Amino acid sequence: MRATYIYGAGDIRVEDAPDPRILRPTDAIVRVTRACICGSDLHPYHSMPASDQGATIGHEFIGVIEETGADVATLKVGDFVIAPFAWSDGTCPFCREGLQTSCEHGGFWNMPRLQVGGAQAEAVRVPLADGTLVKVPGPVSPDLYPSLLSLSDVYGTGWHAAVRAGITDGSTVTVIGDGAVGLLAVLSASQLGAEQIILMGRHQSRTDLGRKFGATDVVAERGEEGIERVRELTGGYGTRAVLEAVGHMPAYEQALGVVRPGGVISRVGVPQYESAPVGFGSLFGKNVTLTGGPAPVRAYIEHLLPAVLDGTVNPGEVFDRTVDLEHTPDGYRAMDERSALKVMVTP
Amino acid sequence: MRATYIYGAGDIRVEDAPDPRILRPTDAIVRVTRACICGSDLHPYHSMPASDQGATIGHEFIGVIEETGADVATLKVGDFVIAPFAWSDGTCPFCREGLQTSCEHGGFWNMPRLQVGGAQAEAVRVPLADGTLVKVPGPVSPDLYPSLLSLSDVYGTGWHAAVRAGITDGSTVTVIGDGAVGLLAVLSASQLGAEQIILMGRHQSRTDLGRKFGATDVVAERGEEGIERVRELTGGYGTRAVLEAVGHMPAYEQALGVVRPGGVISRVGVPQYESAPVGFGSLFGKNVTLTGGPAPVRAYIEHLLPAVLDGTVNPGEVFDRTVDLEHTPDGYRAMDERSALKVMVTP
Repeated sequence: MRATYIYGAGDIRVEDAPDPRILRPTDAIVRVTRACICGSDLHPYHSMPASDQGATIGHEFIGVIEETGADVATLKVGDFVIAPFAWSDGTCPFCREGLQTSCEHGGFWNMPRLQVGGAQAEAVRVPLADGTLVKVPGPVSPDLYPSLLSLSDVYGTGWHAAVRAGITDGSTVTVIGDGAVGLLAVLSASQLGAEQIILMGRHQSRTDLGRKFGATDVVAERGEEGIERVRELTGGYGTRAVLEAVGHMPAYEQALGVVRPGGVISRVGVPQYESAPVGFGSLFGKNVTLTGGPAPVRAYIEHLLPAVLDGTVNPGEVFDRTVDLEHTPDGYRAMDERSALKVMVTP
Repeated sequence: MRATYIYGAGDIRVEDAPDPRILRPTDAIVRVTRACICGSDLHPYHSMPASDQGATIGHEFIGVIEETGADVATLKVGDFVIAPFAWSDGTCPFCREGLQTSCEHGGFWNMPRLQVGGAQAEAVRVPLADGTLVKVPGPVSPDLYPSLLSLSDVYGTGWHAAVRAGITDGSTVTVIGDGAVGLLAVLSASQLGAEQIILMGRHQSRTDLGRKFGATDVVAERGEEGIERVRELTGGYGTRAVLEAVGHMPAYEQALGVVRPGGVISRVGVPQYESAPVGFGSLFGKNVTLTGGPAPVRAYIEHLLPAVLDGTVNPGEVFDRTVDLEHTPDGYRAMDERSALKVMVTP
């Protein structure tokens, strides 16, 4: 098959790769219908040291079951499935409580030692298929592919940010970041009943989509100026919930500036830092809660799916470009230059 | 009157001081019945640069109203009151939602510019008396003084840790620190229904009191060894809630080590650091929530008072020494040397 590899910063190649095959009786092989490029794929795209050894990449896909291992009980060849960005057994204590990203036997795509490949490819070996994959009742219209694909990561991740922040009817919320996750955090906050949703972002085409998803205000300014604008919009207090969908330190600092005393900062942007201010002058003195982490999207797919299937919501609108697999490198360039918000890949 | 001043590390003096007087119509003057020394008073006792100018100290007291300003409506001369460690108006948006430590017009004791003195003294000017003070229905038996005094800070602070951590029936909890706040965090977790309460502390007289308050296990080991012990006691997972009642970095690191994925670290020890690990390798990857802050004890006093008055709980057991006001410096020494857990001061 053909699959995408990263050889270092800026160096994405599509190459011949071995066809994935069943290695364990709990595996399934999924033929990829659509994959996509994630904002977090841009981190290695910016910083990975050059290497002779390519690494597979991509962790979001929908597809059709092509083969199942002997122990796979709930899925069969031909099923249309959504794959969350983490695989999980569905039975361990963490899975049972909806924290599949901490599954005792699970993992993430692109783990070469376990022979788990990447999603920007023609096919993928899925370990623990019964626990991992969610079947979509058929027939599935191609019109729904973008929104179904968003359930593999960005929609569930935005939802996780909103749920962890405790958003409910009447909440006030600031969303930091106008990438796909930020915009879907806006949609999620709106679905959960938030009254005021302030989207901080500078790209008008994106913030326009944010308004469509439910943002009541847009703040284009950043840093101290942006913080001042949010305070003006909230009677001087800031918002109770802040959904941080970027992962860089300036976004964290922005969150500290716009959160109301007693409020919650919910992070889903993968932190590109390890240490951050949490002491009396930042979190502690204001009794601010810091929460979030890798979204257990597997826990949310069944809940979010019906409104996607019946067209109530259209999270797939975050995709504004499509490339075929051979042109995946162009997709990375477009997202890196910010000429595309999120790029879908058609194998 | 006589009042306690700190002139630098290790230098506590009891001196003549001007009698406090009504400066605003919302003030009250409270004659101190009992005050005490807080673990957090030891921070300046360890590190304050020497100065010719003494600073008042102490922030926990119970006493009797001696005089009220013209606008004080709910309190009268002779009332027995508990003073929380922060003063607050009781009417601003933060007070109304129970976050009096963020009161828009409030503050803390020992703010010389506002002529608000310290509690280790014969009398104190209390600003915003109606919002700040809680009247205890009389007559008040001296036997109750220690437990009533604990409501001015340490009991409410332990309670805040437990409430913010979401402790409920069946919770598993680790409490880090066997000081007065840690022990009362144990009592609070027990009152809220926690099933397993692991107390990490090394002083047997203290951990024995912790067992009396409800600790099911005691771990004397620290660092990696202590973390291993907690994991052994919890099927390898750690506890869902960790109440951190110390404030130093090793206690934070301990908390990271013993918290279950998806769990909560609730801090009430005043952090002696500003930055700390919060990234993928610490909080984020495990979806751990970090919460806590200065306890709005004013919000909890009425709730906690009945069980104190009827003797159901006896949080005052944390006091194991009493000194008169002139011997306050001895009280500091005893707490610093750890020969006393918590020292009560009788003016």
